Amino acid sequence: MELLETKVDSREIYRGKIITVHVDTVRLPGGKETRREVVEHPGGVGILALDHQGRVAMVRQYRYPMGRVVREIPAGKREPGEEPSLTARRELQEEVGATAGAWQDLGALLASPGCYGETLYLYLARDLTLGAPRPDEDERLEVDWVPLEQLVEECLDGTLQDAKTVAAILKVQLLLSKK
Amino acid sequence: MELLETKVDSREIYRGKIITVHVDTVRLPGGKETRREVVEHPGGVGILALDHQGRVAMVRQYRYPMGRVVREIPAGKREPGEEPSLTARRELQEEVGATAGAWQDLGALLASPGCYGETLYLYLARDLTLGAPRPDEDERLEVDWVPLEQLVEECLDGTLQDAKTVAAILKVQLLLSKK
Repeated sequence: MELLETKVDSREIYRGKIITVHVDTVRLPGGKETRREVVEHPGGVGILALDHQGRVAMVRQYRYPMGRVVREIPAGKREPGEEPSLTARRELQEEVGATAGAWQDLGALLASPGCYGETLYLYLARDLTLGAPRPDEDERLEVDWVPLEQLVEECLDGTLQDAKTVAAILKVQLLLSKK
Repeated sequence: MELLETKVDSREIYRGKIITVHVDTVRLPGGKETRREVVEHPGGVGILALDHQGRVAMVRQYRYPMGRVVREIPAGKREPGEEPSLTARRELQEEVGATAGAWQDLGALLASPGCYGETLYLYLARDLTLGAPRPDEDERLEVDWVPLEQLVEECLDGTLQDAKTVAAILKVQLLLSKK
């Protein structure tokens, strides 16, 4: 089956600090045309930072679109042109105050591929050295350290809901249990 | 630490077929003001449909914002006011042509809580009866059935990237292996 959709026209709606929104007319396989609403996002990273006691750095942060505090792994947006592996090092330092001696790529995630163009790169950070966090000026967050096993249970029972956080915790649990 | 951000002002940028975009001025704890770009989305569902042979229904679909075909579990947006469990039944019927005798709630996912207000509800569907798919008019998709164990490997090696798909597959793998 032919699946490709081709752009006929694109109308920019909004170019903001983080996101860009455009509405495109696309041609479907077979020739019919339809509209696609697209939100572009620079992409970001999520870091599962695991200490020598098997505990993971978890961040509590008010997420304005959700209207509540959400518990997540440390994460952040890429600066323009920044390599995701450098974004990960920068965000772990800023949000947790940690540097890591060992980094492992956990693969990419598409946050919501129907409308939202964000790709997230996940990393496992180990061999940690702790210092003082340096959050962005308009970022307020609390960090605590939680045993990986407890977080796995909180993914399975629905307590943890952030998609990158659930994906990273369950990936690490299954990868470590294979060894 | 005080984390709450309160709305000072909201400016609507775009009200589309699926998404609504607004830019809000918010007051941070401590009194400073900043802007938040918010994309509202009606929310949706993802369904991990598992047959009697341990195979999972996977959908291939062109995802225009990503510029490529993405492999995902069956999924879809909620109609206004629709209960997520009904959305799940409808989407499984439309995309896969299946009905399920047993449904299990797998929890909610926040796709990207920094800017994007989408909540996804995940379900495990079993005891399947297959019929003919009835996709939406502007939806082109291919369905195939893949062993759960293979999909777990494809999550761990980074081949599968859709966030709801990775979360649902790894949750089901860990839930079923507990029994």
